[in-house]
Amino acid sequence: MISEKMKQLVANSSAIRAMFEEGNRLAKEVGPENVYNFSLGNPNVPASESVKKAIIDIVNEEDSNILHGYMNNNGFEGVRQTVADNLNRRFGTSFGISNIIMTVGAAGGLNMIFKALLNPGEKVLTFSPHFGEYSNYASNVGAILEAVPANTIDFQPNIAEFEAMIKPDTRAVIINNPNNPTGVVYSEATIKSIAEILERKSAEYGNPIYLISDEPYRELAYDGVDVPYLTKYYKNTIVGYSWSKSLSLPGERIGYLVIPSEIDDYQNVFDAATTAGRILGFVNAPSLMQKVAARCIDENADVEYYNENRKILYGKLIEYGYECVKPQGAFYLFVKSPIADEREFCKAAKNHNILIVPGRNFGCEGYVRIAYCVSRDTILKSLPEFKKLIEEYK
Amino acid sequence: MISEKMKQLVANSSAIRAMFEEGNRLAKEVGPENVYNFSLGNPNVPASESVKKAIIDIVNEEDSNILHGYMNNNGFEGVRQTVADNLNRRFGTSFGISNIIMTVGAAGGLNMIFKALLNPGEKVLTFSPHFGEYSNYASNVGAILEAVPANTIDFQPNIAEFEAMIKPDTRAVIINNPNNPTGVVYSEATIKSIAEILERKSAEYGNPIYLISDEPYRELAYDGVDVPYLTKYYKNTIVGYSWSKSLSLPGERIGYLVIPSEIDDYQNVFDAATTAGRILGFVNAPSLMQKVAARCIDENADVEYYNENRKILYGKLIEYGYECVKPQGAFYLFVKSPIADEREFCKAAKNHNILIVPGRNFGCEGYVRIAYCVSRDTILKSLPEFKKLIEEYK
Repeated sequence: MISEKMKQLVANSSAIRAMFEEGNRLAKEVGPENVYNFSLGNPNVPASESVKKAIIDIVNEEDSNILHGYMNNNGFEGVRQTVADNLNRRFGTSFGISNIIMTVGAAGGLNMIFKALLNPGEKVLTFSPHFGEYSNYASNVGAILEAVPANTIDFQPNIAEFEAMIKPDTRAVIINNPNNPTGVVYSEATIKSIAEILERKSAEYGNPIYLISDEPYRELAYDGVDVPYLTKYYKNTIVGYSWSKSLSLPGERIGYLVIPSEIDDYQNVFDAATTAGRILGFVNAPSLMQKVAARCIDENADVEYYNENRKILYGKLIEYGYECVKPQGAFYLFVKSPIADEREFCKAAKNHNILIVPGRNFGCEGYVRIAYCVSRDTILKSLPEFKKLIEEYK
Repeated sequence: MISEKMKQLVANSSAIRAMFEEGNRLAKEVGPENVYNFSLGNPNVPASESVKKAIIDIVNEEDSNILHGYMNNNGFEGVRQTVADNLNRRFGTSFGISNIIMTVGAAGGLNMIFKALLNPGEKVLTFSPHFGEYSNYASNVGAILEAVPANTIDFQPNIAEFEAMIKPDTRAVIINNPNNPTGVVYSEATIKSIAEILERKSAEYGNPIYLISDEPYRELAYDGVDVPYLTKYYKNTIVGYSWSKSLSLPGERIGYLVIPSEIDDYQNVFDAATTAGRILGFVNAPSLMQKVAARCIDENADVEYYNENRKILYGKLIEYGYECVKPQGAFYLFVKSPIADEREFCKAAKNHNILIVPGRNFGCEGYVRIAYCVSRDTILKSLPEFKKLIEEYK
């Protein structure tokens, strides 16, 4: 009785979520302290005390009709100004409120911009491995996601194949930097190559190809690595952001879109994204959390905690004989499976109460994703199990 | 550069929202106290003190990783149990957590259930006048909204025409009770007729026709009128709810879907709605507000305030010579325009600084909607202007 499209989607429903639920089930069986659940990007670092303080201050100070009421579908003007100012300070941009739309998380913002830009049958390009939901977001508007095959040497985008795959019906490119699932930060050289190709192809086809930069992990970068701000490299860039990771608020669904005035057809794109938010049923970003994010705009999650997890886990896995590119961002390791079918490897890991996600959910078979946004204790206690696991394949 | 579909949508973008913005512009021009903005269903009654207390208590008491973290996409189990218990107490139902999905407002829930049920090209029936966004929600999944013409005698649904319009590709019917824009509460007799026809037609076509009941105004009912709980009248009923009006939290985007175990293909529909929430980019209902709604489950907005507004405005408009069915729910009056083209009448009203919305936005020309969820002062000060306005047509 459900729609044909949903039948398949339900059947294939997010393996990541299924794994997360499996972890909860396993925790009831063997005790949560004995389950090493690396399946979901659910931050372990708590939201800072300033988030709590902001919530309490705001509800004490503000008029509840305004605080909890409808506002312009784009979000509160003051909040949008705060976001613009913050970006301008950090990246030397010159955004104003007419460049910012507050969104229901990054996921909401991406669906809005896809709805705004894409006609049925048109193509969106991305690079494997990539966040699995992108194909669903494209499919929601009848568009098609195509993924440039992974460059498994260093997981920087495969630029030559990218160029070859751009066709006249390619309307947008979406990238995720720092990357989920690899943790790799696309270098400035990579970004410049992408920009140069998009400029050239846009000119060739006489239509702008929009670059959508999905950046929930922007603040999670290590070793002092620079994460380029893409609007400075390519004028037709639209940025999606979420405070899920940087403020540890994934359940609150709060983020924003940046639509620079410089993009082609700016006013129509901005208005279309706004209208899309309304008709898709988001209506507006949750109002209290808009104000909380604005008050905590200079706050950050405890990146050092993740960094320490990264160093310990990456160091030990390499020592044990795993193969993995050293990540410089996000909170994921993308590890090569010792056998071709990584689903089998994930099953074997489960026998050690280790829950990890097959790479094919990110369009890259033969690898597994380990989300290390977990407690230090989970990391440390899992190490002997990871050691035993890889030894089964030696 | 935007999608073809969005071009028209942006052009026709919600007249209600446009009017609301116009009101803000006008307020800057002549002072907010001199603008009578009846355009938007933005509650004027503030959220109760218990909402504020709940927010503060929850952030003080709960673990921030759980409070602000991901949970099952359906929502927190404890919250869903509280919602089910509340419904069971009030309506003698027997729902459990597996019948409740927390949603990003009612709008989010409706988009999820449309996505779950509807194939492209299939039909959803509703009754005019109706909430204008229903046609967009249907269109989002490629389905088509058809509206049974209004019965302008008493704005109860036109049952004979309804039956004639049900076809083999009618997959769902959506109703809004109490009704936006008329304020009319569909009677038990109406509901029984709808149920009987849907039973018969489902049997005739060998496919269930789901009844979706959109109920954000359930708690706003006056004169002791009974608002029937539809799952008790028709087994294939799905309910969408929002706390936007009952707790005055429209900006927070918090609501739920009820998917009873008794409906045909229950498990698939429930799973499809859950998956739809994820892939549409809602992911989950805002987490803090889920818990706030649960703590305030027995709270209600100050219905008497709206009731008093209703009595004053309805009484005076009738006295001045307006024609209007007396509403028993929600916070709207649906008034007959004294001239055929109600858009002209709305323009004339604007000359009196009165902002009201043309009925064609609800599929019913020749009428206007007045949202009386405004301050008493606005009601009282607008009365002489309403009087002058109608006298222009005598």
